[in-house]
Amino acid sequence: MIIREKEPANLEMPFGLLDGWITPNEQFYIRSHFPVPEVDFKSWRLKIEGAVAQPVEFSYNELRALPAKTLLATLECAGNSRVFLVPKVKGTQWELGAIGNAEWTGVSLGELLRKAGTKESALAVVLEGADNGAIAEPPRPTGKVHFARSVPLGKAMDDVLLAFQMNGQPLPASHGFPLRAIVPGWYGVASVKWLQRIIVVERPFNGYYETVDYAFWEGGAAGSRLVPITEMQVKAVIARPGSNEAIAAGETYRVSGAAWTGGADVVRVELSTDGGGSWQSASLGEEAAPHCWRLWEFDWQTPATPGRCTLLARATDSRGRIQPNERDPDRGTYMINHCLPIEVEIGR
Amino acid sequence: MIIREKEPANLEMPFGLLDGWITPNEQFYIRSHFPVPEVDFKSWRLKIEGAVAQPVEFSYNELRALPAKTLLATLECAGNSRVFLVPKVKGTQWELGAIGNAEWTGVSLGELLRKAGTKESALAVVLEGADNGAIAEPPRPTGKVHFARSVPLGKAMDDVLLAFQMNGQPLPASHGFPLRAIVPGWYGVASVKWLQRIIVVERPFNGYYETVDYAFWEGGAAGSRLVPITEMQVKAVIARPGSNEAIAAGETYRVSGAAWTGGADVVRVELSTDGGGSWQSASLGEEAAPHCWRLWEFDWQTPATPGRCTLLARATDSRGRIQPNERDPDRGTYMINHCLPIEVEIGR
Repeated sequence: MIIREKEPANLEMPFGLLDGWITPNEQFYIRSHFPVPEVDFKSWRLKIEGAVAQPVEFSYNELRALPAKTLLATLECAGNSRVFLVPKVKGTQWELGAIGNAEWTGVSLGELLRKAGTKESALAVVLEGADNGAIAEPPRPTGKVHFARSVPLGKAMDDVLLAFQMNGQPLPASHGFPLRAIVPGWYGVASVKWLQRIIVVERPFNGYYETVDYAFWEGGAAGSRLVPITEMQVKAVIARPGSNEAIAAGETYRVSGAAWTGGADVVRVELSTDGGGSWQSASLGEEAAPHCWRLWEFDWQTPATPGRCTLLARATDSRGRIQPNERDPDRGTYMINHCLPIEVEIGR
Repeated sequence: MIIREKEPANLEMPFGLLDGWITPNEQFYIRSHFPVPEVDFKSWRLKIEGAVAQPVEFSYNELRALPAKTLLATLECAGNSRVFLVPKVKGTQWELGAIGNAEWTGVSLGELLRKAGTKESALAVVLEGADNGAIAEPPRPTGKVHFARSVPLGKAMDDVLLAFQMNGQPLPASHGFPLRAIVPGWYGVASVKWLQRIIVVERPFNGYYETVDYAFWEGGAAGSRLVPITEMQVKAVIARPGSNEAIAAGETYRVSGAAWTGGADVVRVELSTDGGGSWQSASLGEEAAPHCWRLWEFDWQTPATPGRCTLLARATDSRGRIQPNERDPDRGTYMINHCLPIEVEIGR
């Protein structure tokens, strides 16, 4: 794993190691805002409160005794690929590997909300982690802030999972033990780790991590509004070759990678080996599931003569969204899904 | 006027000059985010659009032909008294005079909205000014942004005025000619100047000037949320004496000032001449109207012996809110209404 920050831990997979549809736990990227919280497993409770008929709480064993559900989901860090932005922007300088696809087992958030009984007026659900700390730069709340994000009630009732297992193993500490949310189709930021409290709210939450941070500007000069980052954007990424890799001339090289989107399916991946001048279709891998990435590959006949080539991959999804060529600056430091150039050296 | 910034113009009244319940136009503070926009008076239109049955627009003459309404309202800049914050915070370093009380004449926003016919789903009304420019520091939208703020539909229908006159004179250019909003009881930021467009929206606006700027944190660590600055907070301010004024010992000195609040009436002003150790009631001036400040005065028997005294004023409003002694740090750089110390020198 590539260390991007030691403490709190921020690690990504070297994306050239992509070797299967499921990401092993030890290769799954780790994104932390604060140190891993010390959770006293025996006294730990998940609390559900706010606009509910009856506040409820669950111990770990009580949650494990409920009907379990398993789903597969790809999580991408909303800042993945930030290192490609020129000029450099603030934030962890992720390359390509702040993404992974795993099998998650847990209980349905909707089932728990039904037990608590959400009020008619409920609008959204705040997911609060045990991780907390002070934020340095204004505008920011004073004192310690817990990591927290909200999900609209409809999404919360529909398909949000509270997971205690990752790829069949107990959730690792760095991935949110004892319990984390999985919000399928959304950037990883929504899948709050170290869950401790769920607050049903009757007005937009507007917490730090969905306003000042993890938000973007929508609408242009005629009414830019700050909008939380939610669904993943359509994106294909090249795993192999890597940047500046030396490739033999006049041979067949298998270019490969992964592609994903939010709330839809990837239907096409195209590859350009001439910096975007022309595009050819890649083959999609057979493994597929809702909210999961697709692997893809393309057999490239490399040029006969030495020189440099710029490779680009471009995905299209079932909602007709095509990965853009250019970066949209209103997205600030997040949602980096324009076609990312991989330059390689064709040798003899 | 004290210049706090030359261009764009940011000027405040030297508060020691307070000399009547109505603030003359030339003494009324000026708060600008961008240069005064050049408005072509003949082609200027006020547009009302968004979630309405029928978008409408009005020329200046059409607005002047509608039934006019006059109201009095105090406007305070949300950053007024910022210079008292230690350590110093970002923003224009206002002292006491970024406030004024004036008579405004114009048309009722509610009447115009009724002409356009707001949809059932309408939630709020965005007031957009013609003033615009680029914002330097992130997080911020790229490109040019228009100054804009929103008001909940209920408030917009109830008492928001679109003013073309200020104290019986045509609105001065620096106060928003040809048309500005007056949002009674709210900090001045809501009373958008150089109005050009009113957009009825079906979800919270969350523009730059109500999220990253002109907002504060509510709720503490257990769920801090970013909330737009709206109603003025209860506050009394000493106009005379001024800071470090030399005052004769053993005489009667008439301490005076003004006090205001949002969505309520000032019912009491108290004065302390010993740094908050003891308090005595001041007399409230007779002139009063909803959403307007009250003048107050107190005849102080100054100490017989020389030395320094710290004066504090404290207001209470009809909703039982009392001006706090200490600054709430979650309010960031705005809503500065704790009791502000005025130190004076008692001489022989």
